[in-house]
Amino acid sequence: MRVELLCTGDELVTGLITDTNSTYLEARLFDLGVKVARVTLVGDVRPDITGALLEASARADVVIVSGGLGPTADDFTLECAAAAAGVSMEEDARVLGWLKERYAARGMALNPGALRMARIPAGTEPVRNPQGSAPLVIQQLGRAHLFFLPGVPREYRALVDGEVLPRVRTWLAAEPGRTFRAFRLLRTVRLPESVLNERVMPLAPSHPRVVFGFRTHAPENHLKLMAEAPTQAEADAALAAAEAACRLALGTHVYGADSSEYAPVLLELLARRGHSLAVAESCTGGLVAQELTAVPGSSQVFIGGAVAYSEKMKSAWVGVPPDILEKHSAVSSQTALAMAEGVRAACGATFGLSVTGYAGPGGGTPEDPVGTVYCGLAGLGMEPRCERISLSGDRDRVRLFAASHVLEMLRLHLLAAPVSP
Amino acid sequence: MRVELLCTGDELVTGLITDTNSTYLEARLFDLGVKVARVTLVGDVRPDITGALLEASARADVVIVSGGLGPTADDFTLECAAAAAGVSMEEDARVLGWLKERYAARGMALNPGALRMARIPAGTEPVRNPQGSAPLVIQQLGRAHLFFLPGVPREYRALVDGEVLPRVRTWLAAEPGRTFRAFRLLRTVRLPESVLNERVMPLAPSHPRVVFGFRTHAPENHLKLMAEAPTQAEADAALAAAEAACRLALGTHVYGADSSEYAPVLLELLARRGHSLAVAESCTGGLVAQELTAVPGSSQVFIGGAVAYSEKMKSAWVGVPPDILEKHSAVSSQTALAMAEGVRAACGATFGLSVTGYAGPGGGTPEDPVGTVYCGLAGLGMEPRCERISLSGDRDRVRLFAASHVLEMLRLHLLAAPVSP
Repeated sequence: MRVELLCTGDELVTGLITDTNSTYLEARLFDLGVKVARVTLVGDVRPDITGALLEASARADVVIVSGGLGPTADDFTLECAAAAAGVSMEEDARVLGWLKERYAARGMALNPGALRMARIPAGTEPVRNPQGSAPLVIQQLGRAHLFFLPGVPREYRALVDGEVLPRVRTWLAAEPGRTFRAFRLLRTVRLPESVLNERVMPLAPSHPRVVFGFRTHAPENHLKLMAEAPTQAEADAALAAAEAACRLALGTHVYGADSSEYAPVLLELLARRGHSLAVAESCTGGLVAQELTAVPGSSQVFIGGAVAYSEKMKSAWVGVPPDILEKHSAVSSQTALAMAEGVRAACGATFGLSVTGYAGPGGGTPEDPVGTVYCGLAGLGMEPRCERISLSGDRDRVRLFAASHVLEMLRLHLLAAPVSP
Repeated sequence: MRVELLCTGDELVTGLITDTNSTYLEARLFDLGVKVARVTLVGDVRPDITGALLEASARADVVIVSGGLGPTADDFTLECAAAAAGVSMEEDARVLGWLKERYAARGMALNPGALRMARIPAGTEPVRNPQGSAPLVIQQLGRAHLFFLPGVPREYRALVDGEVLPRVRTWLAAEPGRTFRAFRLLRTVRLPESVLNERVMPLAPSHPRVVFGFRTHAPENHLKLMAEAPTQAEADAALAAAEAACRLALGTHVYGADSSEYAPVLLELLARRGHSLAVAESCTGGLVAQELTAVPGSSQVFIGGAVAYSEKMKSAWVGVPPDILEKHSAVSSQTALAMAEGVRAACGATFGLSVTGYAGPGGGTPEDPVGTVYCGLAGLGMEPRCERISLSGDRDRVRLFAASHVLEMLRLHLLAAPVSP
């Protein structure tokens, strides 16, 4: 089944709003094993809408159209649908009845705008909108089924879930020789996209039923695996085999799958072991603390963060001895180690993390140019350690990758350490 | 000039990510007076990409294509471009040189994935990518100019701003009988979109040459003013008049214009007065510090931030007296005031800011339910003050608006205070 989406509205092509309706519907369809073939956005221009309707219905089995169904003069998507089908617009008695009920319930009279919404292309089927006035309209154009939905996200989602997807599901079940799909997203860190590719693509020929895809989500790279097979069981088995092979090739670079994000995974590792955490940040300026505390319930694990931008606060808050700062400077492995152990001790936490470096664009020294960052990890019963990294890119990128690196030091330490009984 | 966008990638048609690149580019083009005619999203399917390239280039003068330029096996947009033009793929010596330089700077060898990026369709023009490996590629197909950009937002935006838009601007300037435009973005805080709308829309009829538009960028709302006239001088004059009227109606809600972002504006206000700043955060967890320190040069003003998630650290780092915590709890005006003054004194800063509250989803009390946040401001030579706010929405939204609120307390204080001589 080939499905296309068509979204209309000037606001979608002038940067005023981002089309999140399609993201929603695509994900729902993908859960049913349908990959949307094409999404088209056009402005409020009649020939553009009519043309896009004709093109999409020539290619697809199902076209889901949104926007331009409301009461105002720039709502003319259904008129374009009538033009595409070569039929007239007619007032529909059922829709008129729904509108009268809805307006009466609000103590309002039907105005000319509302009456516009009762006019639909001849030969189409209206379906009542539980969340709004404009009905869902279903049209047959050639071999394609067209659904017309309002663009308001609340109404759109209600009609997608309540009316569109159940029909699509019925058609899919009736398809002879349909394809079943299974999907997994493996989330990796510390791997440039080209290296990720090198590691997993040699596995692809052994998994012919699985499509390998990639996505960059800095500082992470994600591997997308999609299995296709004539039965769900075969798709699931093909996916499981490919996933196992990829996980073996990627090792600890895979921190989570599907919707598991990094900070919750790390916090869960800590919580499961009864550990707590404190961080001392210089160049990341609160980014590490912010990422961790964005997670609901993080206060069970996260005790405190010191954003020690000045030398004075590195001493006052996390007890870096002034002579270390003087002798080795604030950007040094000695300072990073003292910050990690200092913040751990100050907060009475199991682990302390630290970041100090030159995020740029100013600063740096010949030995430690902009992009140099020292990351520290200290913990109860372990030798504190420091890693020096060299990052390229602008200030935002250096901060982002430095924050990721220091958190990874902790995650890898936890993975290597046995869970206490 | 007819402009279309084409975005490729399975992640765009399966609900994994929302296409925000197009929103960005549409807005930039609209600033130049160009309304994008159509946006098309297709998955990683060769015939779909090739077909969409041919269709778009038959309709448009300029087609801006993104995605599928990277080092991995599912990056084949340029191969589709070669197929559409009926030319071969060739290794380009310039691109190869750029890649070698880039990889050498990172101490990495060129791998086969990287080498893929040196292959571009014969007869096309590569342009170096300042933010990544894959170059921008420019192709002439029929009468259309095609630009191929990587989909990674940072690289996409850098190439849009640095390479694509300057060329579009030059072509527009050469168009006969063109309309001249002038544009201003007024950035506001503390105003819901509906209130912003109510305040400025009554002004619109007096400025017939100016189009009023709105854009929500939480926690801010922006007003877009675009003047159109037969000469540049008339467009500039019409814009200036509308801008003056809107600024009068909006007062201090307007914190900046065009590309001026909030944190740099606030830091500049502080720096100009020779002031310094420290922050103590509880529920925002480092978000305030992170926003401020993301600005290059912020270390001139920002001294330190304490993310005091536990009661103990509120006392240890920012000197909140334990009896205040006991008597009034950690989420109270008394604690917020003590945190603001405490962090100011600890850092020796001119001003101290504090945030403590219930970001949710857990926590809260009958008197102070989830969404309640206390924001504190203390400063040398001023009475410390605290504001209690009630925010709706999820954890992310509460944190975002709380951070914005406390920074606004400081900005409004600075605007009200005379600049010392």
